[in-house]
Amino acid sequence: MTNRRVEFRALHHNGRPLLLPNAWDHASAAALAARGHRAVGTTSLGVAATAGRPDGTGATAVETLALARRLARLPVLLSVDVEAGFSDDPAAVAEYVAELAGHGVVGINLEDGRADGTLADPACTADKVAAVKAAVPDLFVNARTDTWWLGVDDPLPQTIARARAYRAAGADGIFVPGTVDLATLRALTQRIDAPLNALYQPGGPGLDDLGRAGVARVSTGSLLFRVALAAALATADGIRADGVPAGGLAVLDGLPSYAEVQGLVPADGD
Amino acid sequence: MTNRRVEFRALHHNGRPLLLPNAWDHASAAALAARGHRAVGTTSLGVAATAGRPDGTGATAVETLALARRLARLPVLLSVDVEAGFSDDPAAVAEYVAELAGHGVVGINLEDGRADGTLADPACTADKVAAVKAAVPDLFVNARTDTWWLGVDDPLPQTIARARAYRAAGADGIFVPGTVDLATLRALTQRIDAPLNALYQPGGPGLDDLGRAGVARVSTGSLLFRVALAAALATADGIRADGVPAGGLAVLDGLPSYAEVQGLVPADGD
Repeated sequence: MTNRRVEFRALHHNGRPLLLPNAWDHASAAALAARGHRAVGTTSLGVAATAGRPDGTGATAVETLALARRLARLPVLLSVDVEAGFSDDPAAVAEYVAELAGHGVVGINLEDGRADGTLADPACTADKVAAVKAAVPDLFVNARTDTWWLGVDDPLPQTIARARAYRAAGADGIFVPGTVDLATLRALTQRIDAPLNALYQPGGPGLDDLGRAGVARVSTGSLLFRVALAAALATADGIRADGVPAGGLAVLDGLPSYAEVQGLVPADGD
Repeated sequence: MTNRRVEFRALHHNGRPLLLPNAWDHASAAALAARGHRAVGTTSLGVAATAGRPDGTGATAVETLALARRLARLPVLLSVDVEAGFSDDPAAVAEYVAELAGHGVVGINLEDGRADGTLADPACTADKVAAVKAAVPDLFVNARTDTWWLGVDDPLPQTIARARAYRAAGADGIFVPGTVDLATLRALTQRIDAPLNALYQPGGPGLDDLGRAGVARVSTGSLLFRVALAAALATADGIRADGVPAGGLAVLDGLPSYAEVQGLVPADGD
């Protein structure tokens, strides 16, 4: 297991940014693994919406653990989004993450955004990071600060201050979603001594440009989940309209067959 | 609840075929409902693959029930695919379906294909239909025969014989997946005294043509699930290749936002 964590860590220093696509169920994770992605993350929005629960409110601790248990058996390095750790108590967060790690998870995302739309005190998030690292030292803890997402004024200095606090607490990487401005990302990578994770944005810079700005990891957040949903809806719309199939059916060329989907299931079916 | 079952039944006699899109999790069902689909089915392949279990082998009774409980709270008429009833015992099948019905499900699909690729004795499937109808008389039981899918020789006569046996046992509708040949469908609708359900096939006839052949319901089976998966994979491929986003990103125009996905979740979050 430790070897897998060493491998995951090394993927952040590989020349090109690590693309970490985010899955939300067994099928999406298994299909991404089969497509050659060595590492896969989870999307808390996808996991929550799949279960009919709200995202970012600590409501999916059980679902996240159940999913992680299942996905950890796949031939893939798995990093799990645990929102803010599903608790305000650092010891409880560490206990939860240790259980994930016991199932073979190689990394987590831990965020400082709160359900009420405010940022947690950085000391609280740093305490969670420290507790997790004390419990599972070789787990890759990617500390996410939601400064941009939550629209704080003049986010750059606060982002750097938070990143440094999380890094000092032991975070292995820093995740700053909400900006793909290359000058901003370059400023962040120059002033934060840890691999920087950017969130891919459709229409924004690609992997190579992000890499040139110093970004070490690019994740897709909820994008793949939302693309999947949009494609299904567009296909249903097309069939209902009885017209030329549009939207979703554009992907029919790559449509997995029934047998291919069945082939994503582990041999023991459990 | 009975009113919902009456309404669902009436949708099979509405001039145009009932389009029943098939969901696999809360998000897909809620999104289809929000898109104006009054009735939604489930896809056993999607439910199974989502959970990392094989389809068509009776391995997802627990997952199917849990999903049905959750989806039955949506403002949608829900029909649930129960494969072959997750048991060989008609009484056990009836008990399981009665539990589904207790959660507000308006209909089920019950199939005669077996995990070993053979067809069940039609008397066995008929016994299950009869047991279910005795337990929940107003539930719409859509009996599926897998004659085409399992490649029996000269399928038309056997399909008609099986359909009549299931109808005599109380089935409300007959589902014949695997053929969209309009002459075949017309022959079936003329010789089976029950609403006929056809499976939509990409590139095959549309809703209106199927309706002219007498088809009363058109479902999408695993198609929407597979389209969703394909779109997610194509998007991940496009990002990895750092090229012009292809495939999946064709649906970006209709991409639901984070807030729209959160909006699919019930207010109580449970």
